[in-house]
Amino acid sequence: MVGGGEGAFIGDVHRMAARLDGRFVLVAGALSSDPERARRSAEALGLDPSRSYDSFENMAEAEAARDDGIEAVSIVTPNHLHATAAKAFLSRGIHVICDKPMTATREEAESLADIARQSTARFILTHNYSGYPMIRQARELVTKGDLGTLRLIHVEYLQDWLTDPVEKEGSKQAEWRTDPERAGAGGALGDIGTHAHHLACFVSGLKVESLSADVHRFVEGRLLDDNAHIMLRYEEGVRGTLICSQIAPGQENGLTLRLFGSKGGLVWHQEKPNELWFTPHGEATRRITRNGAGAGEAANAVSRIPGGHPEGYLEAFANLYVEVAEALRSGQAATALPGIQEGLDGMRFVAACVRSSDANGEWVTP
Amino acid sequence: MVGGGEGAFIGDVHRMAARLDGRFVLVAGALSSDPERARRSAEALGLDPSRSYDSFENMAEAEAARDDGIEAVSIVTPNHLHATAAKAFLSRGIHVICDKPMTATREEAESLADIARQSTARFILTHNYSGYPMIRQARELVTKGDLGTLRLIHVEYLQDWLTDPVEKEGSKQAEWRTDPERAGAGGALGDIGTHAHHLACFVSGLKVESLSADVHRFVEGRLLDDNAHIMLRYEEGVRGTLICSQIAPGQENGLTLRLFGSKGGLVWHQEKPNELWFTPHGEATRRITRNGAGAGEAANAVSRIPGGHPEGYLEAFANLYVEVAEALRSGQAATALPGIQEGLDGMRFVAACVRSSDANGEWVTP
Amino acid sequence: MVGGGEGAFIGDVHRMAARLDGRFVLVAGALSSDPERARRSAEALGLDPSRSYDSFENMAEAEAARDDGIEAVSIVTPNHLHATAAKAFLSRGIHVICDKPMTATREEAESLADIARQSTARFILTHNYSGYPMIRQARELVTKGDLGTLRLIHVEYLQDWLTDPVEKEGSKQAEWRTDPERAGAGGALGDIGTHAHHLACFVSGLKVESLSADVHRFVEGRLLDDNAHIMLRYEEGVRGTLICSQIAPGQENGLTLRLFGSKGGLVWHQEKPNELWFTPHGEATRRITRNGAGAGEAANAVSRIPGGHPEGYLEAFANLYVEVAEALRSGQAATALPGIQEGLDGMRFVAACVRSSDANGEWVTP
Amino acid sequence: MVGGGEGAFIGDVHRMAARLDGRFVLVAGALSSDPERARRSAEALGLDPSRSYDSFENMAEAEAARDDGIEAVSIVTPNHLHATAAKAFLSRGIHVICDKPMTATREEAESLADIARQSTARFILTHNYSGYPMIRQARELVTKGDLGTLRLIHVEYLQDWLTDPVEKEGSKQAEWRTDPERAGAGGALGDIGTHAHHLACFVSGLKVESLSADVHRFVEGRLLDDNAHIMLRYEEGVRGTLICSQIAPGQENGLTLRLFGSKGGLVWHQEKPNELWFTPHGEATRRITRNGAGAGEAANAVSRIPGGHPEGYLEAFANLYVEVAEALRSGQAATALPGIQEGLDGMRFVAACVRSSDANGEWVTP
Repeated sequence: MVGGGEGAFIGDVHRMAARLDGRFVLVAGALSSDPERARRSAEALGLDPSRSYDSFENMAEAEAARDDGIEAVSIVTPNHLHATAAKAFLSRGIHVICDKPMTATREEAESLADIARQSTARFILTHNYSGYPMIRQARELVTKGDLGTLRLIHVEYLQDWLTDPVEKEGSKQAEWRTDPERAGAGGALGDIGTHAHHLACFVSGLKVESLSADVHRFVEGRLLDDNAHIMLRYEEGVRGTLICSQIAPGQENGLTLRLFGSKGGLVWHQEKPNELWFTPHGEATRRITRNGAGAGEAANAVSRIPGGHPEGYLEAFANLYVEVAEALRSGQAATALPGIQEGLDGMRFVAACVRSSDANGEWVTP
Repeated sequence: MVGGGEGAFIGDVHRMAARLDGRFVLVAGALSSDPERARRSAEALGLDPSRSYDSFENMAEAEAARDDGIEAVSIVTPNHLHATAAKAFLSRGIHVICDKPMTATREEAESLADIARQSTARFILTHNYSGYPMIRQARELVTKGDLGTLRLIHVEYLQDWLTDPVEKEGSKQAEWRTDPERAGAGGALGDIGTHAHHLACFVSGLKVESLSADVHRFVEGRLLDDNAHIMLRYEEGVRGTLICSQIAPGQENGLTLRLFGSKGGLVWHQEKPNELWFTPHGEATRRITRNGAGAGEAANAVSRIPGGHPEGYLEAFANLYVEVAEALRSGQAATALPGIQEGLDGMRFVAACVRSSDANGEWVTP
Repeated sequence: MVGGGEGAFIGDVHRMAARLDGRFVLVAGALSSDPERARRSAEALGLDPSRSYDSFENMAEAEAARDDGIEAVSIVTPNHLHATAAKAFLSRGIHVICDKPMTATREEAESLADIARQSTARFILTHNYSGYPMIRQARELVTKGDLGTLRLIHVEYLQDWLTDPVEKEGSKQAEWRTDPERAGAGGALGDIGTHAHHLACFVSGLKVESLSADVHRFVEGRLLDDNAHIMLRYEEGVRGTLICSQIAPGQENGLTLRLFGSKGGLVWHQEKPNELWFTPHGEATRRITRNGAGAGEAANAVSRIPGGHPEGYLEAFANLYVEVAEALRSGQAATALPGIQEGLDGMRFVAACVRSSDANGEWVTP
Repeated sequence: MVGGGEGAFIGDVHRMAARLDGRFVLVAGALSSDPERARRSAEALGLDPSRSYDSFENMAEAEAARDDGIEAVSIVTPNHLHATAAKAFLSRGIHVICDKPMTATREEAESLADIARQSTARFILTHNYSGYPMIRQARELVTKGDLGTLRLIHVEYLQDWLTDPVEKEGSKQAEWRTDPERAGAGGALGDIGTHAHHLACFVSGLKVESLSADVHRFVEGRLLDDNAHIMLRYEEGVRGTLICSQIAPGQENGLTLRLFGSKGGLVWHQEKPNELWFTPHGEATRRITRNGAGAGEAANAVSRIPGGHPEGYLEAFANLYVEVAEALRSGQAATALPGIQEGLDGMRFVAACVRSSDANGEWVTP
């Protein structure tokens, strides 16, 4: 693992996700750029001190040289380090599991993509919301044609934790996420907009053809956007909206996806992830539940426990780790796993939003 | 009443709303432009045959001449007749209660506004959703400053009844609502977008300064929009979105309003109208109920029965009729009642959406 | 109308319900036992002073003597007056619409039943919750066999307005409802338990064969029960529970009905009355909505407006008035309308609960 | 681990729960009473073959003799083996983590309790629902007095998986759970009723003083109850109901707890575990969320990730494993962990329900 030392949020999530199904064991890490903090974090996690590194370069080099070197690395640093770190491992044939967004800027993303294409190792991007069983169910319904011809995709991701300028009040998480140097071109756009964008594309199977954005920072003195409204046109004539905000009081992690087609509609809320609302046009709405009656193969394949026993965010995240393990060990493609292309799409989406908004909402192609 | 004969939808709603609280009695009508249908409808409603007219002009003239002539007229025809009918009564000093949208076109709206300004009679526009107690509660919370500085307004109005081309399959309601001659410049925009627009303005107390729209017709052969996505900028730096659709399977009458400010957030769903979700930033979300603990004066003033005993759409509609009665009989202003200005705003909103969309999403001023 | 003067709750509900669909006009009343209050109330309601009576006996006599005397009377007094008042009208051939519970005691109920059986006039008991469209839908599903063999009926009716001893703090409603002289043998049992009992029987089509009750008063000094837990055995081997409480903070009017059979289950909540949750065993749960896809004839027959436009408590109440009008004027039976038998069943239920609880939960036959 | 071989349900849950937070490593097991199945299961889990045993007796003896013997054993067999297995380990000083119900019969429970009291090792019973953060929150609110004097406890646990006689159709889980030899005296009562009973006691801090039960088997040919209705009297004058069923179509894992006191009420649904509804009497209901605004220390102590990121069943289960690890390694008591006393209470509860029901609902003391 690179990053994820003391005080980090997402590093711990990756560790729990990796651990839940017992497919990966954490054996090495460059857990912090501060050597003392890296050491302390490694100790707390029970790592062999000889495999606690003070930089990801050293880690990549040393682990690549070991017979029992790591199979894959999880990169959970702030965004601006993703590209360099990922390259260090990919170029040495070590698989990379990278937190989103893929990089800080679109340029870094393109450059990382070049390296990845030349590597024998794989690159997986943890758009974890795509690991929810009911998201897989939604995708299956779309693919099977149960919605008819898709027409509309509305996705929103609303949070409230940046309502106040907490980046100036000691919140580490807020600090780097609102800092263009470390977060990149997008604030809310990069942090959560990319999730919403990926989810819409993942479930619909469509790419965005053009978009018109109104990107804004509401909190005074903030350097990156904390709110964005976007109108989108997808392939095949589908239209939609995407809104993301981190200043919406009462919205904890309000990721909601809705799709409407000529024959049916779907609604899913991340905060109630075990249910999917499906309406075949002209019939009563169905509440499809994880591992319940009405759930299909795609959802059941990533479910652990019976319906009514809620699985949550960590389980969905862990599903990606299971699929990574299976993909790496079988050598086969994992069609559901986001990778370089999805990462590129995400960074192009962010860049397009900023470009459109700077041009007063002009429709642009990502 | 003008319009509202056999087979009409909204005419019956107006009659029930007027009747519920016993403030108005229906005594005269020009219920249909088809004389035989007008006669039959009048008979069914128990009207004195001598006060069943075959045109609104005749009705206006005759009723104005009677000592016991009507106090007010409800106009519930298709949109294209609103302006002429309203003028006929206003110019004779008879108060007008008119269904929305105010007219078919912006030009008619401006012209009607001129007549209304010169009349001694009042003009009330039945944006009925503003009559819901919890909408009054929301407005009161905004006014009192409980949301702090407003930042975001998201409003959506989603239906599914035009998912198929039912206007070609015998639906009278669909027929005129998708006919530019009778409905006017907006399809979904005029029919439900104006409701959403009014509600956002009503609760926030703000006007739209500019907007960028993506207006579309999805169903082949349809002549008016059945779907629209709009980004908005309100006064005082507030931003938002408005989406309206009549092709969203599973959405029966999905009008949802959300407001977020620097100190709190509000969420209200029309299909669950007796509850309002209020989050003071940094505290647990409250479920405020109609006539329940936590409801304030503005809401209680338009509630009839105890909390937990649901009031619905007709009660909200009836609240406007009560307020009209009180306003007319007291001679005082009714600050909550929509009138000419709100009607004008609505028609300008529709026109601006069409204009913006035609100009590929250019930001325009309504 | 008998009762329902100034300050009354249910009288106003009956008037609104009667008015909504325009089938009845209020023309006479004995609105209060206090003559001055009766006069003022009649004036406020616009009654002809000559038809405002100072006692129901006088009213029954005078109206029966008029050619244009009332067709039916609504009795909305406290419970202890129901029987005498109803008899006064029934014995003169005037139809009676009576609020529930039918009487204060089981003995009065039996005696009223005798009179009613001898009368040419009808007796209707306003168990208004049975007027909800989704309750009619539930009943239809049971009748059609969509639940298979019924096994379980759980009904509960929870309120919180008597959590404190408000009967000693000036609440008129609480005063008589907690007074055995006026309310009768049951407190919560009579006021809301009878509703729950009727609803369970109405939807299932079954009668209670025996029950075991734990009836209690929690608030010190209160003279009647404010809480009851009951286990029931219905006909045909069906079992269930009924709980009612008026001391459950946060529960405004929490009437919930659930039925489970060998092939399916149903859940309905009065506070969200426009939806019914139906699960065919082994399939995803359906959300059936009033006038929406999936609603059947029985529900549609008592619906006014399209799905998604909420109808509420008053509309459900008004459905009974519509059915009364149709029954009286057609001379036909109204199979869905509660009458003497249902009233008797309710009073026997209350008496049985008290008897069982006094015998420490012994199973007794109502 | 004892039990939990191929095809088991709860064994896998225990393993995931133990793994999630990395406090325990699985190193030994007697995973099945069928030696071949035990061997295969151990291999699948990566156990050292020398520590895969063919009986729990052998395992207890061998592990107790090793210097690096197991610290604790998880017992996840059918109920009838719990007591003997637990004794084998407790008597050798090995801590026991045992699935519920504690034993098959009350007699076994008493006997196990004797052994446990004499052992230096601890006994923990995995009433996992008590590990949910919002349950801890509820308990904290009760303890702090935010509900005032408790009056009512309603708990229900409804499932539908035994609606049909699936025990005769090849369901292993159903087979042993409906077999008195293996499940014990209670069917639904033992399997889920004990959970509901424990949760009510855990949150309220109260014990049941007496109860009256109606225990029944609805599915023909079934040997144990599949449904039970119980009225309860707790200490301190609190009353309540408990219903449990495994034949309620549409109810996947419907465990709901409600408490009402003189100053407030609480509602919690296991299927939406991250929210707790709290009503201070006379105020609007609050939605308290896990790790959200309004959550207190007790809940936060067992939360991993931010509010709005759902934690589920496995996380709640894992909370017990974390607390076990902390208790064992600190040597201190873990006040929230269920143990022998709670196990005894549960078995006495089951026995009392059966006894009461056999005596036609007589009130009995557990």
